[in-house]
Amino acid sequence: MKESFITDNFLLKGDFAQKLYHGYACSLPVIDYHNHLPPEEIAQNRQFENLTRAWLSGDHYKWRAMRTLGIGEEFITGNKPDHEKFIKWSKTVPYTLRNPLYHWTHLELLRYFNVPELLQPETADAIYKRANALLGTPEFSTRSLLTRMNVEIVCTTDDPVDNLHAHRTLSQADFGTRVLPTFRPDKVYNFTSATEYLRYQDKLAQASGIEITSYDDLLLALQKRVNYFHEAGGRLADHGLARISVPGNPGGYNPQKLFEKLNKHESLNPDEAVVFQYKLLSELCRMYHKLGWTQQFHVGALRNTNTRMMKQLGPDTGFDSIGDFSQATALATFLNDLDSTNQLGKTIIYNLNPADNEVFASMIGNFNDGSVKGKVQYGSAWWFLDQKDGMEKQLNALSNLGLLSCFIGMLTDSRSFLSFPRHEYFRRILCNLIGQDVENGELPKDEKWLGKIVSDICYHNAKAYFGF
Amino acid sequence: MKESFITDNFLLKGDFAQKLYHGYACSLPVIDYHNHLPPEEIAQNRQFENLTRAWLSGDHYKWRAMRTLGIGEEFITGNKPDHEKFIKWSKTVPYTLRNPLYHWTHLELLRYFNVPELLQPETADAIYKRANALLGTPEFSTRSLLTRMNVEIVCTTDDPVDNLHAHRTLSQADFGTRVLPTFRPDKVYNFTSATEYLRYQDKLAQASGIEITSYDDLLLALQKRVNYFHEAGGRLADHGLARISVPGNPGGYNPQKLFEKLNKHESLNPDEAVVFQYKLLSELCRMYHKLGWTQQFHVGALRNTNTRMMKQLGPDTGFDSIGDFSQATALATFLNDLDSTNQLGKTIIYNLNPADNEVFASMIGNFNDGSVKGKVQYGSAWWFLDQKDGMEKQLNALSNLGLLSCFIGMLTDSRSFLSFPRHEYFRRILCNLIGQDVENGELPKDEKWLGKIVSDICYHNAKAYFGF
Amino acid sequence: MKESFITDNFLLKGDFAQKLYHGYACSLPVIDYHNHLPPEEIAQNRQFENLTRAWLSGDHYKWRAMRTLGIGEEFITGNKPDHEKFIKWSKTVPYTLRNPLYHWTHLELLRYFNVPELLQPETADAIYKRANALLGTPEFSTRSLLTRMNVEIVCTTDDPVDNLHAHRTLSQADFGTRVLPTFRPDKVYNFTSATEYLRYQDKLAQASGIEITSYDDLLLALQKRVNYFHEAGGRLADHGLARISVPGNPGGYNPQKLFEKLNKHESLNPDEAVVFQYKLLSELCRMYHKLGWTQQFHVGALRNTNTRMMKQLGPDTGFDSIGDFSQATALATFLNDLDSTNQLGKTIIYNLNPADNEVFASMIGNFNDGSVKGKVQYGSAWWFLDQKDGMEKQLNALSNLGLLSCFIGMLTDSRSFLSFPRHEYFRRILCNLIGQDVENGELPKDEKWLGKIVSDICYHNAKAYFGF
Repeated sequence: MKESFITDNFLLKGDFAQKLYHGYACSLPVIDYHNHLPPEEIAQNRQFENLTRAWLSGDHYKWRAMRTLGIGEEFITGNKPDHEKFIKWSKTVPYTLRNPLYHWTHLELLRYFNVPELLQPETADAIYKRANALLGTPEFSTRSLLTRMNVEIVCTTDDPVDNLHAHRTLSQADFGTRVLPTFRPDKVYNFTSATEYLRYQDKLAQASGIEITSYDDLLLALQKRVNYFHEAGGRLADHGLARISVPGNPGGYNPQKLFEKLNKHESLNPDEAVVFQYKLLSELCRMYHKLGWTQQFHVGALRNTNTRMMKQLGPDTGFDSIGDFSQATALATFLNDLDSTNQLGKTIIYNLNPADNEVFASMIGNFNDGSVKGKVQYGSAWWFLDQKDGMEKQLNALSNLGLLSCFIGMLTDSRSFLSFPRHEYFRRILCNLIGQDVENGELPKDEKWLGKIVSDICYHNAKAYFGF
Repeated sequence: MKESFITDNFLLKGDFAQKLYHGYACSLPVIDYHNHLPPEEIAQNRQFENLTRAWLSGDHYKWRAMRTLGIGEEFITGNKPDHEKFIKWSKTVPYTLRNPLYHWTHLELLRYFNVPELLQPETADAIYKRANALLGTPEFSTRSLLTRMNVEIVCTTDDPVDNLHAHRTLSQADFGTRVLPTFRPDKVYNFTSATEYLRYQDKLAQASGIEITSYDDLLLALQKRVNYFHEAGGRLADHGLARISVPGNPGGYNPQKLFEKLNKHESLNPDEAVVFQYKLLSELCRMYHKLGWTQQFHVGALRNTNTRMMKQLGPDTGFDSIGDFSQATALATFLNDLDSTNQLGKTIIYNLNPADNEVFASMIGNFNDGSVKGKVQYGSAWWFLDQKDGMEKQLNALSNLGLLSCFIGMLTDSRSFLSFPRHEYFRRILCNLIGQDVENGELPKDEKWLGKIVSDICYHNAKAYFGF
Repeated sequence: MKESFITDNFLLKGDFAQKLYHGYACSLPVIDYHNHLPPEEIAQNRQFENLTRAWLSGDHYKWRAMRTLGIGEEFITGNKPDHEKFIKWSKTVPYTLRNPLYHWTHLELLRYFNVPELLQPETADAIYKRANALLGTPEFSTRSLLTRMNVEIVCTTDDPVDNLHAHRTLSQADFGTRVLPTFRPDKVYNFTSATEYLRYQDKLAQASGIEITSYDDLLLALQKRVNYFHEAGGRLADHGLARISVPGNPGGYNPQKLFEKLNKHESLNPDEAVVFQYKLLSELCRMYHKLGWTQQFHVGALRNTNTRMMKQLGPDTGFDSIGDFSQATALATFLNDLDSTNQLGKTIIYNLNPADNEVFASMIGNFNDGSVKGKVQYGSAWWFLDQKDGMEKQLNALSNLGLLSCFIGMLTDSRSFLSFPRHEYFRRILCNLIGQDVENGELPKDEKWLGKIVSDICYHNAKAYFGF
């Protein structure tokens, strides 16, 4: 067999890094505590029709690359046959050199399909055929793909009104990977009109069985859904926000009044919207805290920038980018509000703008109070930053300004069942950084100790932190 | 001959980087698609009196260094004899170690004057004499200097009211380098008073032959000048702005009313100024789009910070620095406005604050729609960032968040005829980054493919992109 | 003796870096021109009871690490016995790998106590015993500790109302290190209520002997204290601010009116507070300028984020982090105001957010006017950034955007008598950067010249700049 450029020691410079990776990191199970896998596809144990469906459908990273190269939308999200789409992607891959897509692509081909060849037009047909054949076998069903990657726990991302049937089915299935829901209530505080809000309020009323006629009812309905998730094994919540916004004059607005305004089909002005969001978010965080959950915040994205394409394709189709919002003061205020009544629970903050890495890496130290190891976490490099440079920057900022040793590590944040080699990618990068420090004389050559730290970050810290 | 520390393999670590540079990059012609060369000096084929005139006059990088070292203004922009100024500069050079001036200086001495010695007081007189002797020969006229550096195309930066006589002269001259104008209409939307605006409006009326009595007349006059530039071979526009500013309530202001206010000699308030600028800029971009031009935006500079020196020396004399403006949301809004009517043309955005690199590198992907390869470009490291560290950061951000392979590469942005080795500098840095990736096992050792990518970025991408 | 992982060539890669450090940097005296050492403890020549008192009391870096690891406050700032606190710290140290604490800790153990072992629970008791024994000897009094580290000058940080008795005592003592005061007037413009302000005004009146009944009296009292510091050898001022804030409409507020308002026990609104601060700060800077002082600005911190812990422990206890304030425009305005009347003195600006490094490194060039070598300085990496990565970024930004050769170098900014190996740390990092450039062929191999630059940055530049 031809050898892939992704060798055994890919990304691992020097003996010590290689020892750390092969001896401590590589065989640990995976706790993928945040992703966007569709739980139904695991419950149904879906098989993919072909590699285009498994790999290109829904992957906006790949779509952006193809658009940049000048490939027409019909080959990306349009109606062209799957095989033609794959050919266009194979043409694109060589042009993605130095982009994470280049490494991800070849790592995934190698780990799932044992394909060492570079993907390019000349190799595209053979690879397509081979992968499709494998995808047709039971060893490539969604559950098998997770098992193959040694995935112990998967936390999906779910709407509060979701009935979690898939999760309940899976909890009773004979399947080694635990699949747990995550409560993501964005729709209840991120809306652009009263109509949009009310549509969601209706769903929430239905799901919770609570008639929502007041702000307190709204909280009650949310509490019921939090409890429902808890019973289904959920121990995490997640929130997507450009930034935490703090109302200038929070006392000046009564959330009940804002609730009434919305229920009169009147939209909130920007100041009111900030108050409504801030109050609701705070109440939700208090609920999580009471149950010992972990709350996640994904901040920093500038979303839906392209109206023309939004109309055509909807959200999450590759028209989002990195924002440059001011984050520090408001985030500190928010965390402090919760902390001041001893209601700040375990918290993970994911940052999208690397210019803010040091802001976040130092912020978490303000609210670590000795109660839980690594209580407030600066989350793993996210979305656009989920690449070698982005991960190294996150790891270095966390190291310099906090304690890397308490870090709970990597997650895929992905919609794709083929994305789990990103844990391998992360583990190699982590081992390489520490190994390099040893080679450079910046850390003592203590394999046992450093091996323990590596395995903590890759697995044990997350296990202990979430209490899974 | 003594060997310069700038060896053949300067900045090129490892065999592969050296192969890429010497085999693919170094002999390609130069397309310098943005600079501030005075076209008259090319038309006249000027000879420089001495090295001080060719090298120190007008170079605010050098001036800043000299001021920082504690050298009096009389030796910098003042009346001291050219030779004394040069001596002071020679004293400064050794103190510029690790600043790009150190590399630029010795690279320029080597490439133009074949001087391998370090410039310092001990060598100053000999170097001055040698360079002056050469500058007196026809081989060192402005045109010869461009020819010597293999410059195929030069795009200067010109005011819309410019008659472009120099460009017309050159288009008929027997000269291998094409010299094209760039439309830079800053004065029509960047002004601080009605008086300043009206002075410019008069010039514009005169140049266009349009009596400007309404906002529509103003647009008509600008359109005529755009057409005039187009006929003279212009295919680019350029805009210098601290940032794109989006009016809070654009509908609230009528540009015709703002035009009338200005023409009554009343200055605009800040909100009005933003609207006027935004509207005009949008209209201009629609004109460029219709003609298939490329529009450039240089954002992020904090200009004219020093009033005392501004009064003494005027703008562009070394008292500007890097701003920390919020850029993302407004820029996305602006690009989206143009895109929403399918009037967003080819666009290059240059960023001055490296903290914003990832914001810009990810932003361009939002508006790449498959119509043109690399349609929206994240421009080369600019001004203060035009050094190894700045270029590497730009190249890495672009690689990680976009497609480096579609990049149109380097430009000098310079006022100096002696600055063209900066293309060499860029090419070496580019080849070194890719070569290092190969040495590190992060890219496959495919010389043919990587050589093609390198030559695309150094030459072919720009050629195709601009349609020269 | 066991060898420490901190070898002779710690952080020094390659021969040239090692030559620079050992030949030029390492034996130079230390000018620690900014720190928070308590001058009384030097005057009294204090002996420390044990290593916990000398090392852990007051060190909020260590406290944050312990809290993050999950250690209870009683072992950090609480009532547990010193020995138990030390044991908890010894347990923490191995978990600080890659944080500067790890290097600082072992460097300090090695340089002061000749301890090569790693600090961890297994070695804790022996190390504690050994260090305590040494701390009981005269060779480990505060003065001896400074002498041992070759400290020539120490500049403490003092309140304008301080009587400077300790400094006066020391100036007459037989002690080789000069201990000079620094004027830090934060309390006169950073306050949250009229009450807080008035309490300070009273102290100022008393200290100055001026009855303060007008804004002019306030200035007079401050001038008297500036003079008092000057007589005691003070040549520096320092200011801690989140950022410089520029009033929107400075003419709209009369400082005398604001003074009257405060003296009627009415607090200022935010706009008024900005005016009051800006005016006072400007007047103070003019006073410093007249006396040839150097003014320092420490900007960028987000302070006192945790109300619960603030109530419990007060300020400076580990609940501050890095802010993301907009800095450039206001800072330029402030410096320009002083410069426009030729009253901008020597200035050092310290930045806490590395995302702003390039903003600051380029800003200083706007006000370097040839009058003093390196007149406006971009200060050494500060607080959270006082680690290898932070220092390298500061040095690289300064190199690329200004003149590294004019840099006045390192300071401890510390409250600890055991922190002086940070100068060694800085010197190693500096030599390594320059040495690496030589190894990479980016600088000529000119040992004499580069050795001079290194020794300038480590010692001579500061000496000349401050005129000590």
